[in-house]
Amino acid sequence: MKRNSKDSIIEAAITLFNRNGYDGTSIRDIAAHAHVNVANISYYFNGKHGLLEYCFTSYFEKYLEEIEDVYRDILLDPTEKLKKIAESIIHFHCLHPHLTRFVLREVSIDSQVVREIMSTYYVKERFYLTKILEEGIEKKQFKKQMISYSIIQLKSLLSMPFLNAFYLTEVLHVYVRESYFAKKYSEEIYRWIDEVICFHKESLSIP
Amino acid sequence: MKRNSKDSIIEAAITLFNRNGYDGTSIRDIAAHAHVNVANISYYFNGKHGLLEYCFTSYFEKYLEEIEDVYRDILLDPTEKLKKIAESIIHFHCLHPHLTRFVLREVSIDSQVVREIMSTYYVKERFYLTKILEEGIEKKQFKKQMISYSIIQLKSLLSMPFLNAFYLTEVLHVYVRESYFAKKYSEEIYRWIDEVICFHKESLSIP
Repeated sequence: MKRNSKDSIIEAAITLFNRNGYDGTSIRDIAAHAHVNVANISYYFNGKHGLLEYCFTSYFEKYLEEIEDVYRDILLDPTEKLKKIAESIIHFHCLHPHLTRFVLREVSIDSQVVREIMSTYYVKERFYLTKILEEGIEKKQFKKQMISYSIIQLKSLLSMPFLNAFYLTEVLHVYVRESYFAKKYSEEIYRWIDEVICFHKESLSIP
Repeated sequence: MKRNSKDSIIEAAITLFNRNGYDGTSIRDIAAHAHVNVANISYYFNGKHGLLEYCFTSYFEKYLEEIEDVYRDILLDPTEKLKKIAESIIHFHCLHPHLTRFVLREVSIDSQVVREIMSTYYVKERFYLTKILEEGIEKKQFKKQMISYSIIQLKSLLSMPFLNAFYLTEVLHVYVRESYFAKKYSEEIYRWIDEVICFHKESLSIP
């Protein structure tokens, strides 16, 4: 029962943060939506800011784990690593659409908690992606490129559909929650990796 | 003097919306920041929601104008149109970094005003981009592709650095406000257009 009330608080918080924004949501709203007492939220999360931090931590711990697992896989070459990361992140985002949407929106705000995320999780993510890109360039699988700009593009492609799931549904009639989407969109990212990041296979076979 | 106070209200609103979120900003905060009376804001914008609508309208009117101008230019072929749109949007976003960041964050929320934007501005944008992509496919400049997925990618690439300007600065040390950025990033998008959307120039000359 206790476990259930903790989960329902988190679920209610993410729903309301997405609907009304973090600042537009009160502890009372969350308590009402989750059918718990305000005191329960204080007990588990020490208030609204604690809930926000909980959302960030649970997102980023899992997000980075996905990247680290691929980074450490010694059987994969740089191209395979990049593709596997794309696939894992898309899968992870598809599994947690509401949390993802909220976190991706919230990290665009310049706040203390976001600064901490930048200097921990995002600096680590940059480290892993940089290492993979550098290894690919060194092994002549990847074209010479400005690594920061490649990271911008990869992160753009992996975040936009989930942040803008509503746009995709309403305007493009593309449904992020359908299993078809994850498969199809992963292929699109593979194409970006093959064409923009890697040397083309044809041109490699010519000389 | 009147003109100045209207401008300073808008400027204060965008700054505070970005810093504290729309819901975390009160009319009083905006009035204090802009050094005007609360009554001035009511007079010009009919309250906070009016200010929000003003921000959206001024962003999207100009945004769509950039796309329409290129779409209507009969001297450009589809590839040139796509590149010119990318360049214009990047330039427009660089000119208005705060407004852009706020609007791009706000449209990820499912609200009444966002629904209206989807069904007007974004539907028009989809129309123009679809026409250009279809024309490119028909003229055999572009590969066969799922148009919705190409639009997702183009819009990803054109929005992420501006929504996440803070991430770019803090983590990647890339500065959206430097003129170098607009030039360099446009070239990255051209590369995406050339490699992912268009047939490669080499493979065109082979047969």
